[in-house]
Amino acid sequence: MAKKQLRVGMIGYGFMGRAHSNAYKQVGQFFPSQHEVVLKAACARNEAEIKKFAAQWGYESVETDWRKLVERPDIDVVDVCTPNNLHKEIALAAAANKKAILCEKPLAMNAAEGREMVAAVEKAGVPNMVWYNYRRIPAVTLAKRIIDEGRLGKVFHYRAKFLQDWTIKADLPQGGQGLWRLDVAAAGSGVSGDLLAHCIDTSLWLNGRLESVCALTETFVKERMHNLTGKVEKVGIDDACTFMGRYENGSLANFESTRYARGHKALYTLEINGENMSLFWDLHDLHRLQVFDYKDPDAKGRGWKSVHVTDGDHPYMGNWWVPGLAIGYDASFTHQVADFVKGLETGKPEGPTFRDALETQHVLDAILDSAKSQKWVNVGRG
Amino acid sequence: MAKKQLRVGMIGYGFMGRAHSNAYKQVGQFFPSQHEVVLKAACARNEAEIKKFAAQWGYESVETDWRKLVERPDIDVVDVCTPNNLHKEIALAAAANKKAILCEKPLAMNAAEGREMVAAVEKAGVPNMVWYNYRRIPAVTLAKRIIDEGRLGKVFHYRAKFLQDWTIKADLPQGGQGLWRLDVAAAGSGVSGDLLAHCIDTSLWLNGRLESVCALTETFVKERMHNLTGKVEKVGIDDACTFMGRYENGSLANFESTRYARGHKALYTLEINGENMSLFWDLHDLHRLQVFDYKDPDAKGRGWKSVHVTDGDHPYMGNWWVPGLAIGYDASFTHQVADFVKGLETGKPEGPTFRDALETQHVLDAILDSAKSQKWVNVGRG
Amino acid sequence: MAKKQLRVGMIGYGFMGRAHSNAYKQVGQFFPSQHEVVLKAACARNEAEIKKFAAQWGYESVETDWRKLVERPDIDVVDVCTPNNLHKEIALAAAANKKAILCEKPLAMNAAEGREMVAAVEKAGVPNMVWYNYRRIPAVTLAKRIIDEGRLGKVFHYRAKFLQDWTIKADLPQGGQGLWRLDVAAAGSGVSGDLLAHCIDTSLWLNGRLESVCALTETFVKERMHNLTGKVEKVGIDDACTFMGRYENGSLANFESTRYARGHKALYTLEINGENMSLFWDLHDLHRLQVFDYKDPDAKGRGWKSVHVTDGDHPYMGNWWVPGLAIGYDASFTHQVADFVKGLETGKPEGPTFRDALETQHVLDAILDSAKSQKWVNVGRG
Amino acid sequence: MAKKQLRVGMIGYGFMGRAHSNAYKQVGQFFPSQHEVVLKAACARNEAEIKKFAAQWGYESVETDWRKLVERPDIDVVDVCTPNNLHKEIALAAAANKKAILCEKPLAMNAAEGREMVAAVEKAGVPNMVWYNYRRIPAVTLAKRIIDEGRLGKVFHYRAKFLQDWTIKADLPQGGQGLWRLDVAAAGSGVSGDLLAHCIDTSLWLNGRLESVCALTETFVKERMHNLTGKVEKVGIDDACTFMGRYENGSLANFESTRYARGHKALYTLEINGENMSLFWDLHDLHRLQVFDYKDPDAKGRGWKSVHVTDGDHPYMGNWWVPGLAIGYDASFTHQVADFVKGLETGKPEGPTFRDALETQHVLDAILDSAKSQKWVNVGRG
Repeated sequence: MAKKQLRVGMIGYGFMGRAHSNAYKQVGQFFPSQHEVVLKAACARNEAEIKKFAAQWGYESVETDWRKLVERPDIDVVDVCTPNNLHKEIALAAAANKKAILCEKPLAMNAAEGREMVAAVEKAGVPNMVWYNYRRIPAVTLAKRIIDEGRLGKVFHYRAKFLQDWTIKADLPQGGQGLWRLDVAAAGSGVSGDLLAHCIDTSLWLNGRLESVCALTETFVKERMHNLTGKVEKVGIDDACTFMGRYENGSLANFESTRYARGHKALYTLEINGENMSLFWDLHDLHRLQVFDYKDPDAKGRGWKSVHVTDGDHPYMGNWWVPGLAIGYDASFTHQVADFVKGLETGKPEGPTFRDALETQHVLDAILDSAKSQKWVNVGRG
Repeated sequence: MAKKQLRVGMIGYGFMGRAHSNAYKQVGQFFPSQHEVVLKAACARNEAEIKKFAAQWGYESVETDWRKLVERPDIDVVDVCTPNNLHKEIALAAAANKKAILCEKPLAMNAAEGREMVAAVEKAGVPNMVWYNYRRIPAVTLAKRIIDEGRLGKVFHYRAKFLQDWTIKADLPQGGQGLWRLDVAAAGSGVSGDLLAHCIDTSLWLNGRLESVCALTETFVKERMHNLTGKVEKVGIDDACTFMGRYENGSLANFESTRYARGHKALYTLEINGENMSLFWDLHDLHRLQVFDYKDPDAKGRGWKSVHVTDGDHPYMGNWWVPGLAIGYDASFTHQVADFVKGLETGKPEGPTFRDALETQHVLDAILDSAKSQKWVNVGRG
Repeated sequence: MAKKQLRVGMIGYGFMGRAHSNAYKQVGQFFPSQHEVVLKAACARNEAEIKKFAAQWGYESVETDWRKLVERPDIDVVDVCTPNNLHKEIALAAAANKKAILCEKPLAMNAAEGREMVAAVEKAGVPNMVWYNYRRIPAVTLAKRIIDEGRLGKVFHYRAKFLQDWTIKADLPQGGQGLWRLDVAAAGSGVSGDLLAHCIDTSLWLNGRLESVCALTETFVKERMHNLTGKVEKVGIDDACTFMGRYENGSLANFESTRYARGHKALYTLEINGENMSLFWDLHDLHRLQVFDYKDPDAKGRGWKSVHVTDGDHPYMGNWWVPGLAIGYDASFTHQVADFVKGLETGKPEGPTFRDALETQHVLDAILDSAKSQKWVNVGRG
Repeated sequence: MAKKQLRVGMIGYGFMGRAHSNAYKQVGQFFPSQHEVVLKAACARNEAEIKKFAAQWGYESVETDWRKLVERPDIDVVDVCTPNNLHKEIALAAAANKKAILCEKPLAMNAAEGREMVAAVEKAGVPNMVWYNYRRIPAVTLAKRIIDEGRLGKVFHYRAKFLQDWTIKADLPQGGQGLWRLDVAAAGSGVSGDLLAHCIDTSLWLNGRLESVCALTETFVKERMHNLTGKVEKVGIDDACTFMGRYENGSLANFESTRYARGHKALYTLEINGENMSLFWDLHDLHRLQVFDYKDPDAKGRGWKSVHVTDGDHPYMGNWWVPGLAIGYDASFTHQVADFVKGLETGKPEGPTFRDALETQHVLDAILDSAKSQKWVNVGRG
């Protein structure tokens, strides 16, 4: 009855490093299983910082070279929380060392990289997953369940937005601690890879494949000081990206993301309109799912229903508190770890796997191609 | 096929005089019937003002003495829009002259006056109605229909609030144009007769009789300049009034009204909690009814449903525009006139009649008695 | 001091015929001026119907031939409430007869027709206006005032949606009473001319010229029975239309309209994101403007402010009731008539004039061209 | 630089036992200090259950007799998570053993018990705190900061509700696992001690002392099966409780709590209306504070501002994620532990201490007395 250890090696210690660590620590208390997650090692180039992080979060050891970490025999799972431009290299090395891999999103800088990563983990036969955590916000998971029950009927529209306002300041540098998302060399793209990637992953999960897209991107602040050179340089990322598209199921897509929507901090909203039912969700009120049910037997009393997703029979919620008491954004990571472990125990991997996440890379590539060519672009496959 | 004329004599020309006049003018276009409402005469002591009002609204003639108006043979309906302290005298005279009477709320200064008025109209056998217009906001009427279908089951709670903030300024005089509601001699009471009267009327209609109450009143600004004397005098009205109570059906009442709730303009909200269903309505979003249905077959998807009451099959709405397009507060008066006319045509008077409104006076008397005695008080009858 | 008469000849008696008539009747009571609007004649081919309409709304006479109406010397203003395919012909004839013209939106079937109409009214020198009524919902007018004060700073984004769900039923015929909007011959287009036209007009007013667009249209129900032939025929309208665009001021556009968004009746929403302030409005709660002010001196307490636009100092509201009491959708037409009259009295015509509305036609043409060619299209001018 | 250990002995393992344990585990990662919280021992009579709990949460040892626990020299802090009827006895023993005490709310069964407990901890000089966790929901803490800045001006009203619906089912037993809150012998009272206690604590913190109250209680389900006797017995708790009151600062109180408000899971709302500002908060959307600021320089744009309390400069939020990402209900406990530790380090104890919580007991006693006597009752002191 002793639990099997799952020894984690964490690469990175920023926002996501903290969010994942909290999940590893919570999972055993809220979602007990036959596995025990152990925080084995944390890794970053800055030794002082990573030691401080390891002490604070309870990692048993530290590394300053990720190559060493992925080779350590006492590591079962490598968690990749680095900037995007390192994902591929680390994942390939981890796969070669037969480690399970939990990789931050987006999977890669582009679909070509993603393909290599998929090939690597599939060839190595290692468990793999990408941290598209929004699938496991209970309200979003509830949406998935409702859709899988076939209650929407034919789908006409899917729309999603992810609006922020934190880069309006023109004097923000590109690159540096907490700011690598502005540096195209580290991030690969701007809001598309950072924010739309989330929206696309959720939509592929909920509504199936996107066939073609037509996009518009804009960079409002054309030049910013670069943290590495200290010079004002051209900004290479997209500050805003809007795209239209067509899904395989005949529905239409309307997606938009920006970091220039004053007043919105992290307004990820999604809506799906079916013949019989519509669903709406909003990250700013993450514990609610809005449901319009045309089949409501009370025909004169139809309306949008605000479902406060905190009951014991709501997804994941039976493991938390009591009805009415909301959990945080952070719980989505705890749920993801719980499901990852479940996948290990059942032998049926839970998504999004690297292969699932590759689809999102194809959409991202198509968007950026379209924005450049100003034409409709078919989304690549496989 | 000629329509029967309903010749209105309007006494008063303030806020309510305008609201009623608009309703008289709209009713024939939106709710055609066998009657034609004719704006025959408008009456007020100030001749210049009433002439201006009559010209603007299309009244055929004016009077400066209400006694003359109620005696005119070419008047069928007397509309009493004066301050509260004149309601009784005018209504008695109108009844004596066999006029139908539409009286502003509250019916009277107190239950004793109300009793006299009920006796007068019933003895005279004249149609009578009181302008508790909120019954005919479509969302409130929809609530009534749902309740009458028995969908709530046993009722546990009824709560209502009417919050405003317009008298916080200490330099507002008591009395004068638009300010007679601050003068106890003209108004009889403060927020209780002005605002709670509406809440009580709706609640008696939706939830039945109140048996007993216990109230708290407060006058925050103790002295104000009086417009008649020009002197600073003690304020006689209640600025705020809260009461608890017990309904005949076993449910509990919690009512509150104030003119000192900063940020609320006319926040009349009501909520009723039944075993199987709860309903909520808010005047600030008057076109929505919030419905929680415990019998929702979608047990894992229960939530508060926001019903946008603008469909053709919602109460009154088939006579207006198309779904999604809201009507205003003012339409409630148009609906009331339409129903008053319907009552004439069917022979079944629509409420609230003077007798219905007398019940509200009894509750108001009990509230003020309780606030004074600091004890629970049984609500009077008949 | 006698008022000058403004004798209206109304062509059409449907939804808009009623909405405009209500406005003509209300304007003198709520927005008194030196003019008196007189309902002189109503016109439609169906004599029985137009007589009934005229009787109900108080039109003095009827016509069954619009050519006669526009020639009548006792008509000052022609109100064009016909299907779109008749706008041009009627407007040209009315202009030739020196009538002022109030034309329903969209101005025309396309920009070419619109150009002719602009030329005609400008040559004739007759007052002219198009019923894009949403400019005069008080919350929208307030948005305009705030923008004109320069409080937004540089604008980054403008987005608008107009979502409905009333044509999801596949057995709805194309054409016939209340359904001409489904018939491409009568309507010219589907949601673009019907719904996006409103969104475009408001946006041009609030945010200036659109330079280029890229659009996607879809017709979900490909064939419907035609009311004239009784046969199932190909549907020629767009059921859904999404477009992206670029404004002259550098901001990006994201617009979407559909009649297949289950749960939305008339969800016209607009949002504008500026450097210093964002604004949001929603027709389903038309009396509220949502404002985010980055310059809020309470920096730690920034948030979206829900302004209940019912105070006396809000646009138009001083002429209605008291704070907190909402007016309806219909009031926007009353405001438009009031402003039209004001334009006559001041000599400064209030928009949207035919020339203003021609801009919207150019955008509509560009959208439909783009959807067909699958390319970005520059918006035409003049 | 070694941290000082704070060795916790937890008594109880239910809902609160879990919530506190999660807080103890999180506090070091999110709110690092000079102390290290160690989960030393967990205690409950049921040995199998407490062993399971200890294993899951990482407690080093277990006890089945709380007397042993409070005497253990390796325990620094005793956390009392038992039913209310055991609080006093345990606290007295813990104080006698010089343990710091963190006691679940309400402090005691009544003020008399509470007085003994206060005397005990003060005499022993041990740190003490009561788990009124809602003070440390960031939006509520923000409200406190705003109030302390004096921005509200004179306060007129304070209202709070705590509405639930989980005991409507008549076949729920009184007593037993998770149901001791229905057993008057274990709980002391119903919604008053359970739910209103929270509302009262927050209000005393935000608005000062309550001077007098007048209350109404009701027990809707009069008899329930008792889990201990297996017989249907009279229910001794209050199912619903409403009270009015007067604060020392001249403002009026309106409080209500029930477990019979269908559709509400844990709807704790509070509102305070001041001369210059009003604040509103709702546990169902716990990350938002609604603020109405009459001093808003934008006088024509006043409205209720929805502050999404997730920015780095909002209370506690700098230690969590990034703007827009909400934390859960559970974080309030983590904040409380963080502040408890801070109190130890600064020497200035953070509230609510036992003495603070005694005030709430006095209000609860007054409420129950008033409901019984049907009279106004002055709130006891000290």
